[in-house]
Amino acid sequence: MTLDAVLARIDNSLPEALDRLMALLRIPSISTDPAYAAQCDAAADWLVADLASLGFEASKRATPGHPMVVAHAPGDGPHLLFYGHYDVQPVDPLSLWDRDPFDPALEETPAGQVIRARGASDDKGQLMTFLEACRAWKAEHGRLPCRLTIFLEGEEESGSPSLVPFMKENADELTADLALICDTGLFESRTPAIVTMLRGLLGEEMVVRGPSKDLHSGMYGGVAINPIRVLTKVLAGLHDETGRVTLPGFYDGVTELPEAIRAQWQGLAFDHARFLGDVGLSQPAGEQDRTPLEMIWSRPTCEINGIWGGYTGEGFKTVLPAEAHAKVSFRLVGDQDPNAIREAFRAHVRAKLPPDCSVEFHGHGNSRAGHMRTDSPAFEQARAALTEEWGRSAAYVGCGGSIPIAGYFQTILGMDAMLVGFGKDDDQIHSPNEKYDLESFHKGIRSWARVLARVAG
Amino acid sequence: MTLDAVLARIDNSLPEALDRLMALLRIPSISTDPAYAAQCDAAADWLVADLASLGFEASKRATPGHPMVVAHAPGDGPHLLFYGHYDVQPVDPLSLWDRDPFDPALEETPAGQVIRARGASDDKGQLMTFLEACRAWKAEHGRLPCRLTIFLEGEEESGSPSLVPFMKENADELTADLALICDTGLFESRTPAIVTMLRGLLGEEMVVRGPSKDLHSGMYGGVAINPIRVLTKVLAGLHDETGRVTLPGFYDGVTELPEAIRAQWQGLAFDHARFLGDVGLSQPAGEQDRTPLEMIWSRPTCEINGIWGGYTGEGFKTVLPAEAHAKVSFRLVGDQDPNAIREAFRAHVRAKLPPDCSVEFHGHGNSRAGHMRTDSPAFEQARAALTEEWGRSAAYVGCGGSIPIAGYFQTILGMDAMLVGFGKDDDQIHSPNEKYDLESFHKGIRSWARVLARVAG
Repeated sequence: MTLDAVLARIDNSLPEALDRLMALLRIPSISTDPAYAAQCDAAADWLVADLASLGFEASKRATPGHPMVVAHAPGDGPHLLFYGHYDVQPVDPLSLWDRDPFDPALEETPAGQVIRARGASDDKGQLMTFLEACRAWKAEHGRLPCRLTIFLEGEEESGSPSLVPFMKENADELTADLALICDTGLFESRTPAIVTMLRGLLGEEMVVRGPSKDLHSGMYGGVAINPIRVLTKVLAGLHDETGRVTLPGFYDGVTELPEAIRAQWQGLAFDHARFLGDVGLSQPAGEQDRTPLEMIWSRPTCEINGIWGGYTGEGFKTVLPAEAHAKVSFRLVGDQDPNAIREAFRAHVRAKLPPDCSVEFHGHGNSRAGHMRTDSPAFEQARAALTEEWGRSAAYVGCGGSIPIAGYFQTILGMDAMLVGFGKDDDQIHSPNEKYDLESFHKGIRSWARVLARVAG
Repeated sequence: MTLDAVLARIDNSLPEALDRLMALLRIPSISTDPAYAAQCDAAADWLVADLASLGFEASKRATPGHPMVVAHAPGDGPHLLFYGHYDVQPVDPLSLWDRDPFDPALEETPAGQVIRARGASDDKGQLMTFLEACRAWKAEHGRLPCRLTIFLEGEEESGSPSLVPFMKENADELTADLALICDTGLFESRTPAIVTMLRGLLGEEMVVRGPSKDLHSGMYGGVAINPIRVLTKVLAGLHDETGRVTLPGFYDGVTELPEAIRAQWQGLAFDHARFLGDVGLSQPAGEQDRTPLEMIWSRPTCEINGIWGGYTGEGFKTVLPAEAHAKVSFRLVGDQDPNAIREAFRAHVRAKLPPDCSVEFHGHGNSRAGHMRTDSPAFEQARAALTEEWGRSAAYVGCGGSIPIAGYFQTILGMDAMLVGFGKDDDQIHSPNEKYDLESFHKGIRSWARVLARVAG
């Protein structure tokens, strides 16, 4: 059986596959910080070269931000598009890393070998699982399994400002029969999963201004308005005592889970205590009448992701600052409208401003929630392939994170997207000491080989 | 008249006095930042040398923090102690300064010549007014006006941790008939003033901790407790809608102003609109049934001086942080007990903590409010001297800032303190572009010469 030969080749050439991933991980492609623009460009170049070595017609495509990588290979059977992103999250606070985040290494841990580096899991390690599956297939068969398009983005961690315009301008070129996305995880770190529900994301940055300059709190304290105090009042008013978001209309478009899905999720026997215990918590915060799984997969949230103002150095400074800042994000579900929520948020802030205060907003990308249609045959084919590789029945699950691309594939290109990934809950993505299990990488490559065999077959 | 000769000498030697002040201003003696410890030491050395050149027996005295400078000169008449501080505030944000804060310069402005530098007004320029008055007196008379002790501190801007132990250990050496302090201002930038009421100060720093590490808000948002959200709830609860502080017992010991003082303050015809307008404000915040002058001089406050947590860089990062920080200070009046208020604050925070959250506090110095006894003859003698120099009737006023030393002189050494200073409202102390008017410096030196003539006479 040729699949067996492909799988054997994957097993035998794992060291070389790992070397290639390490090379990609050494490029600090932090997209949100303009200081790393050249490194994002270098990561795109590296991928173009690697895809060309696989026989793809590959190119780096300029955008107003970081470039896209697009590659095509002809073939028979269905036309599949694979999406991943080569950019990574910032690494601060650097002091909490045990090693240079861009000097990857294979480490022995009690739970097995892990690849340690920023981007190891999100998303360089994951995207390379697909490329390595293609490489093994090509080596064994002399050709790729079917007509393939590869589409790699460099702005996923910074709100994807160029994505929608690029997809619209290149809609014909990017439209396939089905999109494959590798940016998700195993369920409970061991059960293969296909994500069928994704939360949307809306980001807002704000600065509240009061006095025209920093003041001495002895001279002005009690008389002059303090922007930090105003900001804490504004932000403290975003949730009520039960954890519900207070913005008018926030829950418009949020529907209750169908009983069938709720039952299926309950059947997953999610270990809520371990999920929280792994990060030092014992109780779920937020809406008290929901299970944690339901909250993460099907309920909207509002979180303060950053706050700063006044004196933040060592010692004490009795300053009454001229301004105070915050970054706030919303996770969206169902048919929640990001634009309406943005307006409701801004109206809430403006309504709470006392005299002599002003506010300035800066919007960071927004995306609606996504829902995948699992009745297309590829979904069941992939589920069977994943079940075979991992020895556990693969599940349809939700995802608390936002992968807006899945929604764009539906709305802009009219194609379904299938989200399959091999990350684990302790991968520390977006945190110091990010890692990707060697098992995730190895079995991830094998999983894609199996999926391709069934779907392309 | 010898006083006239001393005043003429002050006028004629002003350029040399200015050169000496510039030399002291070039030393970046930021006491709150340990990185500047050597510079604080250098400032103390400079002052010891300058005092020795005036005939004082001067020495630098080690403390667990920055050194004290103590100098003695024998003489007839009353024994006066002069206090000032050679340390300065931090300079961030440096980008808002129009020049290097430690490269002082004399600048022409529409309002006259100013000395521009960190510490020009607070407190190096002010303390040098007294030393220059002594210098001119000595040059003219061949001796100092009376028995003098000089006591200069290097930790005033960082909570004075060594001050009380040092005063207790050296009580005999530091006790005089009257203390003179030069760290205050002219009333409304033109009326000479003696401060008789000072607010106390209590500083608290806190860190709220939740998850054991930074989390991805997609993965955990809505389920894991967010320390920034907890912090905003805690801080937003410190004031009610009318601006009153909500801590139980906070107003214990706060007495209403005697009608006589309230009437005297109203007679000062303070320009509230200009006071606020100068810093871009139109309305007093805080307690709505008080005048701004009453609020600043006689009412307690609670202010948030700094806040930080999560991602504060450019772009967006959907992090759910492990911890969030704040610095909070209280200005105290009457008989408010700083220790009781510290405990009430900590109890308030702890009571608001949800499950799985912890808080760690770090106390920054505390001092009670101070009240001076104006019935000792020196007060009326100084008031007459100041009235003569400035051509306006000198006033007894309150001060919103905290100069704990005044209270310590009373409680530890049993002596009265007289606070006279020449700062102006637009000196930008604790802010970028601090300055001291050349007029403040020049007439300040002349003022001390006149005060010494009357009080020592």
